[in-house]
Amino acid sequence: MQVGILGTGDVGQALGTAFVTLGHDVRMGAREAGNPKARAWALAHGPQASAGTFADAAAFGELVVLATLGVANERALALAGPDNVRGKIVIDTTNPLDFSSGMPPTLAVSGQDSGGERVQRQLPDALVVKAFNTVGNALMFQPDLPGGPPDMFICGNDGAAKARVAALLQEFGWNVIDVGGIEASRYLEAMCLVWVLAGMQTNNWNQAFKLLTA
Amino acid sequence: MQVGILGTGDVGQALGTAFVTLGHDVRMGAREAGNPKARAWALAHGPQASAGTFADAAAFGELVVLATLGVANERALALAGPDNVRGKIVIDTTNPLDFSSGMPPTLAVSGQDSGGERVQRQLPDALVVKAFNTVGNALMFQPDLPGGPPDMFICGNDGAAKARVAALLQEFGWNVIDVGGIEASRYLEAMCLVWVLAGMQTNNWNQAFKLLTA
Repeated sequence: MQVGILGTGDVGQALGTAFVTLGHDVRMGAREAGNPKARAWALAHGPQASAGTFADAAAFGELVVLATLGVANERALALAGPDNVRGKIVIDTTNPLDFSSGMPPTLAVSGQDSGGERVQRQLPDALVVKAFNTVGNALMFQPDLPGGPPDMFICGNDGAAKARVAALLQEFGWNVIDVGGIEASRYLEAMCLVWVLAGMQTNNWNQAFKLLTA
Repeated sequence: MQVGILGTGDVGQALGTAFVTLGHDVRMGAREAGNPKARAWALAHGPQASAGTFADAAAFGELVVLATLGVANERALALAGPDNVRGKIVIDTTNPLDFSSGMPPTLAVSGQDSGGERVQRQLPDALVVKAFNTVGNALMFQPDLPGGPPDMFICGNDGAAKARVAALLQEFGWNVIDVGGIEASRYLEAMCLVWVLAGMQTNNWNQAFKLLTA
């Protein structure tokens, strides 16, 4: 499968590398074609890895992963081009975090809206699935935690798209819990803050949620 | 210790019974003194258990537990009387759930506010600690889950109050994670919705969160 990654940060690199490891072809997109982080990543990951603009990555991917800073989503998606993701699954890994007052961040979007809903509104013809937003990049692929596998909570409006993402997540080493339509991003993005605040208390960022069940 | 429980529903009954089991004296309060559920609970739980009004329970408790329906908090606390909880720990177990559109509920308070913050504002001289709001009543006391103990996420503005509640929670069988000031109720109340939505997907309500850590 061809995968387009929008974003060159830790999350984009972690997921890009994971998809290459699983045998997929990955193009990492950035605002500018010559982005040095994207080029370095592509060089380091062999012939399956390439780099380009957001639009290049979006057009390349049969599956597209949004891994920009949440507050930069709108601009990144405008550059990626909604037409380039028409009919495609877009995994939204982002959180609308506002770090303007330092740590802990707060949510720049909350209440009756969420980052995930904004992404879906900006990409009306894409199948947006929220995933990977309640865990740090270090554990996104093959999380090896005592008591695992942890649970990845996902949501989105298209059942078939969620089923494909769920199958991928299982390959990534996760149990998957579908919590509904894209509006459930309101809750999953808030849950990211619980993850952050807990990490600040315990000073342990190697943490991932699981719903223990009887 | 004397414990006042505000509310006669499943949560109030589960926590009231738990405190009696641990040897505490518990008064369950309701809107009206003769509330049959409170009286029946008190009769069934021996001499340590009693029933009264919200104000009776609030005055009786060295520790007070708010276990009303979240959307009824304001009225219940007005009846309980802010003066009756002055300087006391108030454990806020509630979620501002709006069931007006059926299942799943939504949050009646969200964005830059939360139920927990509203409780603290209404009781400015009480030490409000949010707890028990991310799990169902059946697992609040001695949760017996494979891979447990689960994590109880708490928040509140007073460190000493949180330490006392954390010690209690450990007696109840929980690991405790403190996620900060009462404003973190915004995230914990959203997390309740993840618990609800996951339960609806899996049809298993015997579930409690844990942060797996490496």
